[in-house]
Amino acid sequence: MARIKLGMVGGGKDAFIGGVHRIAARIDGEFDLVAGALSSTAEKSRESGIALGLEEDRCYGSFEDMAEAEAGRADGIEAVSIVTPNHVHAAAARAFLARGIHVICDKPLTATMQQADELAKAVSESKALFVLTHNYTGYPMIRQAQAMVAAGALGDLRVVQVEYPQDWLTEAAEQTGTNKQAEWRTDPERSGAGGSVGDIGSHAHNLACFVTGRNVEKLAADLQSFVPGRRVDDNANVMLRFDGGMRGMLWCSQVAPGNENGLKLRVYGEKGGLEWAQEDPNYLWFTPFGEPKRLLTRAGAGATEEANAVSRVPGGHPEGYLEGFANIYAGAAQAIRAAQQGRRDPVLDLLPGIDAGLAGMRFIDACIRSSAEDAAWVTL
Amino acid sequence: MARIKLGMVGGGKDAFIGGVHRIAARIDGEFDLVAGALSSTAEKSRESGIALGLEEDRCYGSFEDMAEAEAGRADGIEAVSIVTPNHVHAAAARAFLARGIHVICDKPLTATMQQADELAKAVSESKALFVLTHNYTGYPMIRQAQAMVAAGALGDLRVVQVEYPQDWLTEAAEQTGTNKQAEWRTDPERSGAGGSVGDIGSHAHNLACFVTGRNVEKLAADLQSFVPGRRVDDNANVMLRFDGGMRGMLWCSQVAPGNENGLKLRVYGEKGGLEWAQEDPNYLWFTPFGEPKRLLTRAGAGATEEANAVSRVPGGHPEGYLEGFANIYAGAAQAIRAAQQGRRDPVLDLLPGIDAGLAGMRFIDACIRSSAEDAAWVTL
Amino acid sequence: MARIKLGMVGGGKDAFIGGVHRIAARIDGEFDLVAGALSSTAEKSRESGIALGLEEDRCYGSFEDMAEAEAGRADGIEAVSIVTPNHVHAAAARAFLARGIHVICDKPLTATMQQADELAKAVSESKALFVLTHNYTGYPMIRQAQAMVAAGALGDLRVVQVEYPQDWLTEAAEQTGTNKQAEWRTDPERSGAGGSVGDIGSHAHNLACFVTGRNVEKLAADLQSFVPGRRVDDNANVMLRFDGGMRGMLWCSQVAPGNENGLKLRVYGEKGGLEWAQEDPNYLWFTPFGEPKRLLTRAGAGATEEANAVSRVPGGHPEGYLEGFANIYAGAAQAIRAAQQGRRDPVLDLLPGIDAGLAGMRFIDACIRSSAEDAAWVTL
Amino acid sequence: MARIKLGMVGGGKDAFIGGVHRIAARIDGEFDLVAGALSSTAEKSRESGIALGLEEDRCYGSFEDMAEAEAGRADGIEAVSIVTPNHVHAAAARAFLARGIHVICDKPLTATMQQADELAKAVSESKALFVLTHNYTGYPMIRQAQAMVAAGALGDLRVVQVEYPQDWLTEAAEQTGTNKQAEWRTDPERSGAGGSVGDIGSHAHNLACFVTGRNVEKLAADLQSFVPGRRVDDNANVMLRFDGGMRGMLWCSQVAPGNENGLKLRVYGEKGGLEWAQEDPNYLWFTPFGEPKRLLTRAGAGATEEANAVSRVPGGHPEGYLEGFANIYAGAAQAIRAAQQGRRDPVLDLLPGIDAGLAGMRFIDACIRSSAEDAAWVTL
Repeated sequence: MARIKLGMVGGGKDAFIGGVHRIAARIDGEFDLVAGALSSTAEKSRESGIALGLEEDRCYGSFEDMAEAEAGRADGIEAVSIVTPNHVHAAAARAFLARGIHVICDKPLTATMQQADELAKAVSESKALFVLTHNYTGYPMIRQAQAMVAAGALGDLRVVQVEYPQDWLTEAAEQTGTNKQAEWRTDPERSGAGGSVGDIGSHAHNLACFVTGRNVEKLAADLQSFVPGRRVDDNANVMLRFDGGMRGMLWCSQVAPGNENGLKLRVYGEKGGLEWAQEDPNYLWFTPFGEPKRLLTRAGAGATEEANAVSRVPGGHPEGYLEGFANIYAGAAQAIRAAQQGRRDPVLDLLPGIDAGLAGMRFIDACIRSSAEDAAWVTL
Repeated sequence: MARIKLGMVGGGKDAFIGGVHRIAARIDGEFDLVAGALSSTAEKSRESGIALGLEEDRCYGSFEDMAEAEAGRADGIEAVSIVTPNHVHAAAARAFLARGIHVICDKPLTATMQQADELAKAVSESKALFVLTHNYTGYPMIRQAQAMVAAGALGDLRVVQVEYPQDWLTEAAEQTGTNKQAEWRTDPERSGAGGSVGDIGSHAHNLACFVTGRNVEKLAADLQSFVPGRRVDDNANVMLRFDGGMRGMLWCSQVAPGNENGLKLRVYGEKGGLEWAQEDPNYLWFTPFGEPKRLLTRAGAGATEEANAVSRVPGGHPEGYLEGFANIYAGAAQAIRAAQQGRRDPVLDLLPGIDAGLAGMRFIDACIRSSAEDAAWVTL
Repeated sequence: MARIKLGMVGGGKDAFIGGVHRIAARIDGEFDLVAGALSSTAEKSRESGIALGLEEDRCYGSFEDMAEAEAGRADGIEAVSIVTPNHVHAAAARAFLARGIHVICDKPLTATMQQADELAKAVSESKALFVLTHNYTGYPMIRQAQAMVAAGALGDLRVVQVEYPQDWLTEAAEQTGTNKQAEWRTDPERSGAGGSVGDIGSHAHNLACFVTGRNVEKLAADLQSFVPGRRVDDNANVMLRFDGGMRGMLWCSQVAPGNENGLKLRVYGEKGGLEWAQEDPNYLWFTPFGEPKRLLTRAGAGATEEANAVSRVPGGHPEGYLEGFANIYAGAAQAIRAAQQGRRDPVLDLLPGIDAGLAGMRFIDACIRSSAEDAAWVTL
Repeated sequence: MARIKLGMVGGGKDAFIGGVHRIAARIDGEFDLVAGALSSTAEKSRESGIALGLEEDRCYGSFEDMAEAEAGRADGIEAVSIVTPNHVHAAAARAFLARGIHVICDKPLTATMQQADELAKAVSESKALFVLTHNYTGYPMIRQAQAMVAAGALGDLRVVQVEYPQDWLTEAAEQTGTNKQAEWRTDPERSGAGGSVGDIGSHAHNLACFVTGRNVEKLAADLQSFVPGRRVDDNANVMLRFDGGMRGMLWCSQVAPGNENGLKLRVYGEKGGLEWAQEDPNYLWFTPFGEPKRLLTRAGAGATEEANAVSRVPGGHPEGYLEGFANIYAGAAQAIRAAQQGRRDPVLDLLPGIDAGLAGMRFIDACIRSSAEDAAWVTL
């Protein structure tokens, strides 16, 4: 089967997440990167594109140019990955959606609620698909956790605890002049009003909702900026109230020394509990109340079809972050091929899209609003 | 050196914590249990006492009888352990304090704030010592953590995360008629208004304060009673604001399947982080920011004098809950012997006493008040 | 019930294991230490004894004096703990056995095979009990593992892997003049011909045999003394052939940096596997073939009556080395009380005695012989 | 840069390792699979090839046809991956080496020593490169371990412990008629005389040698076939003597329930120790003697340039088996591009090649010989 022709917006030199998207797109052999507006200037974009093996005439100076030119080619891109800072997501996505080009967009959805609403409108008006890379939902054991919860393995849900600590912003990395990642991710103009809540809290929120199938109705958030001069939050304590009576807490931090990328989810119901940690993603701990804890392993003992469907190698051969990310791309490929044949593939039920993106934006916005009111409860 | 003559109030058949106190008192050979008012009736008390090897005439039907009789004996008890349900603590402790008998009392301090205040007054008016068994502060690596924080190993503190999940009340154990522990611990008359926040949340609060040297100034608590018919909270989500600007969260739960006794503390400062888990108590994880995580082991590599002072066996020979508990008793013995010689032993600075007890009561009370106001911030 | 009157041989100042025995004897309140020949000179023995609260006239200058004097007292000791270096075990034990005083002796049995045989003869001729503190068999989850294997949970056994790495002799600690433990444990005169194989290999061998119920028929051992000047082995690689066709390996080392006291046992049969680690002793991993691994916890989910019988506190409240050791003492107390009433208590089936001691000596001897023949197979 | 044109021998339907090689070749975008002799019949090969997107005329019925045809095309393959059962490796590799086509070959080198020697001769006579996918050497923290050992971080090496337990052959999977993997891997005609020692023991041997830089001089191996009817060993206990005086043990098993793919390496020297486990590959434990254990993380704190050179994502974003495997392919690509320019790339020093393959074959052969002589020492 011919590979899907893919373009990319953002992801030039010094970018982190662009390279991740490219590997994720390659792992299963479903996409070919053939065009790019990789940087904010034509010259840099050309340089980066050529280094990646793109043909020179498909290295564009702006996403607008790329959208127009590629839409006009017989062999033009069928899908585009948007991996820029957040404030560019909406405009870029709209340019491709308007031309029927499928969009795979990094999270959070946008930098502002207004952008988010505009993008949502564009998605609803386009026949093209919109997939948001809340990549942690691509991990096999997360897919399994979702299925187990949905099947009632935990009974009625009561408590969720989700956390996402990191330590890379413990010091003022954005003020050294050498860390572009730190710069834009702490710049409200480019990242949005949320700092840690936008960058990683939104992942934690998404993961909790994905696995439990519940929505946050209200939250109370106490945000801090511990590092002097920092313009956004770098630590957030949040209490959550979900529909259906489930309660929870969310902690995210970028100033917790000793934590690299510590996303962790725990869900408890009247009949059992589940625990999962991103840094050890091939395992899911399941305790039916009153019985010994069980170690369910990806593609091994206790794995369900939902996990096996997105596994590549047997149990004990660890899959990681890139494979989980690739599962979003593999799902997108499957959905795109179906769409090209006029069908809606049910994998879309598992892929984060505009709804998850809007929920994430409402989460970020609610955190900011709540914290501004001394952590009062706000409705999402 | 002659052993300290010890009495006990509570701790008869069906009790859990009484047996723990007795082992803790025996481990280091500093105490001899010689008298008891072990149960609420004279007959049961006698039975339990004889089974424990007490002489019959020192098995009392009430703590009042015991206090009076023992105070009148030349060989009367020098100290008493109070291990009853919470609502008895204050009256019992006062009876012995009034007679100059040192008191070792289980936590939380009392069932109500009024009892707490009365007890505090009694302590202040007595020459006898009052030690509260917030036993988790007795773990060697917790002593070390406290010392490291005090010495500035983490720099200025920013974030504390403390949690204490259990699962033993996932179902309505108090309604089966066969679980006395569950009955009194969920009975507001005997336990106090707090359920999980009183029973285990108070431990988590105490541990966070002990290690960081900070006090909670304000909290916002969202308490739940998930099990139908339960009269107290069985899950609590709490946001904390400490003096000095440190922020944190506390989660305690008795309905989290897969958690036995999961007290865990994490403390982060501008220079490093510490992590400790009660179920793995011989280890303390220390990360100086930017360096690899280090595994500090009790009585092993990286252990400080503070940990070694309360260790009995070399690293790799695990000490546990009973040894940690025994460190409170060993400290009490040291303080009592000094007091008998008219000295104040500095170990008292490490032992939880009336102040820690009052702080704990204020924590519980604040949780109840905050939750009643929809998790509004309340001042302790 | 009156406590059993206990004496102790060895265990004075600078000793490690004596203090462990004393705590183990105290934890369950079954013994009172009332006499001691704690050091090799009368003066030192007296000093150590008084520090421990013994009466002066029961501090003896030699075990012979103690045996004779105590046997002659109406209130003489009923049992004695022998915690000297290995070369003293046999003579000391025989002195007490000959007088009908029960013996609790540290391992390995003796320093030489000849001493072992003489001691075995003395045990067979005495009515007194002989208990050997292969303390690791006292851990609750080891008791459970033994019972599970015996009940066929693993099916026919195939493979055992046991290891016991430490690092405390990585450098020549015995040559510094400041480490008495290192001195006698590397001195063939006092410790026996085995170094690591005697000190810790014998524990590993014992544990494997205890849990599997199998005996080693043949072994091939490759011993090394890595530290220049060391007079005994400090590392041993051993292949094992058990009766019934089970095969295995044993590794012990005192020169493996990063290992404190890493005794670990893994047993595999045609139907399942078990894994246990001494440094994390409250857990037993059980995998029925083809099913998820299960975490069995002491006194918690999955614990059997065999484990519960020797547990003191609920799951999640970690018990450790001292409690496991105390379970040997508690068992000895139970057996001694029965013996005093003319009964044989079935707990003796669980307690290591002279047979386990002889098997251990044959293991050590076989390791030495095999290694001398370039690791040829030798029969035990 | 244009991708390297790759062919594949083996790896059709029902194969496991072929898919792994294809993903590994894709991850970094250095190869394009353009030709294949994927199965043993032309028809099956065509089917598998088309499913993989190959053009029909480049789906060959035999490796001979492929070698000849591709060598004759202007756009013929530049490299070939050989992923057949072991007995085909030599002949296939020779066919391509003879035509100057670079070979990437799965391990072990061949099924017999004779084939190995013939292949070694062919490699020596060819200008083409020969890379053997001892993929575990591609893990970043293994590269770092090797570099740390070479730099003297452990001092003189003393002890190595390596193990590789699995459980997938606990029952007679090869006799069910439904498990092709089990069939050929337990068939001496296709796999070679070694069962577990060939399939996984060879990996363990290779890893120990790679990290320590030492060679096994002698070994004593006790092999078992526990499953009735099995034609090769399924468990192996091996004692090792390395050059330079280092001693060790190797255990591999395919009948150890609860183990998925438990390759684990521990290395100890006079100054420190290293520990690494394949199922948790992003971590390397390093203990300088006398100091706390340190957790070195891939691309995180404590990672060296050797690890970072083969990392794609930051610490805390786990890389796994496929990324480690891809590092072999990435290295091969780098070496091939250099070779095409007449240069030898130093990455070849890190890539397993014919020498590692021969060493592995000698290890397997020695295990078989030793076990046949009742585990006598044999020289490699």
